[in-house]
Amino acid sequence: MGRTSDARQTLIETAIELMGRRGYTDVGVGELCRQAGVKPGSFYYFFDSKAHLAVAALEANWQYAQDNVLSPAAEADDPVERLDRFVTLMQQAHARTYERTGQVYGCTFGNLSGELLALDPAIQNKLREIFARYYAYFEAILRDIHAQGLADIDDIPRKAKSLFALIEGMQMLAHTHNDPALITALTPDIRALIAA
Amino acid sequence: MGRTSDARQTLIETAIELMGRRGYTDVGVGELCRQAGVKPGSFYYFFDSKAHLAVAALEANWQYAQDNVLSPAAEADDPVERLDRFVTLMQQAHARTYERTGQVYGCTFGNLSGELLALDPAIQNKLREIFARYYAYFEAILRDIHAQGLADIDDIPRKAKSLFALIEGMQMLAHTHNDPALITALTPDIRALIAA
Repeated sequence: MGRTSDARQTLIETAIELMGRRGYTDVGVGELCRQAGVKPGSFYYFFDSKAHLAVAALEANWQYAQDNVLSPAAEADDPVERLDRFVTLMQQAHARTYERTGQVYGCTFGNLSGELLALDPAIQNKLREIFARYYAYFEAILRDIHAQGLADIDDIPRKAKSLFALIEGMQMLAHTHNDPALITALTPDIRALIAA
Repeated sequence: MGRTSDARQTLIETAIELMGRRGYTDVGVGELCRQAGVKPGSFYYFFDSKAHLAVAALEANWQYAQDNVLSPAAEADDPVERLDRFVTLMQQAHARTYERTGQVYGCTFGNLSGELLALDPAIQNKLREIFARYYAYFEAILRDIHAQGLADIDDIPRKAKSLFALIEGMQMLAHTHNDPALITALTPDIRALIAA
């Protein structure tokens, strides 16, 4: 693989870090290159534009969330336990970032959606695609909860979106008040929402 | 009041419009002045900085939300009806913006919180202050719901934050998918959250 693909990977990781913290608009290609230790020529060898890098960074960030939160949580047999594990693992990820940086970054996807109308259409579409993956993930859990008689859920696609909305809102509050414990504090309301 | 205070008001309204749509970082003082038809000299007569204008715009936007959503909703006698009216009035405000511009702008406060760590501390503090006003507003409604035996709410401050989180998340989804109907679609889950 060698040096060049390392540079690509470093640029993606740097974009996740800087854009996760400060958003898309505030972070320029020059700063990304300096921070990553990559020459602008290399940047444009791998990416047509900052938007192109941002799309790759969002996909990599999704993969990170999947490996560290969604997939491990989905291993629980009990579907309600899957939801609990999802929130615990998410809270732990925010707490680790907080310990490392003194800041709750919040959800990169949710944060970027706040800048939606300043973003390239390719980034807007990637965000919508990732939101839809979360809906599908929660739908699968809610279908099992309903099928096992653990809660009576009349509209699973709607409830999955509301669940994602609540989880995004929880992260927005933790981010705004810079308090990772807020996620844990609000966790009982996830069960209240699905009445499980 | 004459021309000068008109210029101040126009700058505030222009900031609400542009920052509500594209966020804080993407909008510069030059563009704000051009769009408002105000000379840069006048800008700096009224505001020390873009951050100073943004704080005034957030306060004005809060006042708008209070006059058009929070206060009219609070007039209902039944506290559950107050919540329903809040959501209906909020949905109508987004629908009007959508009809006018073809876009769901989302919640200005929630959107800006996505850029939090790129913002001046004065803006961060204003956002936290406005979030806290929403918590207090929902706490008052939930206290009445609990006192009247319409729902059994064990932790009113927590439930108020979760309610705000869900409502912010709903607006995030409507904004991201540019679909004002999503807010109406998810409304039943507000009642589910408080089990009223």
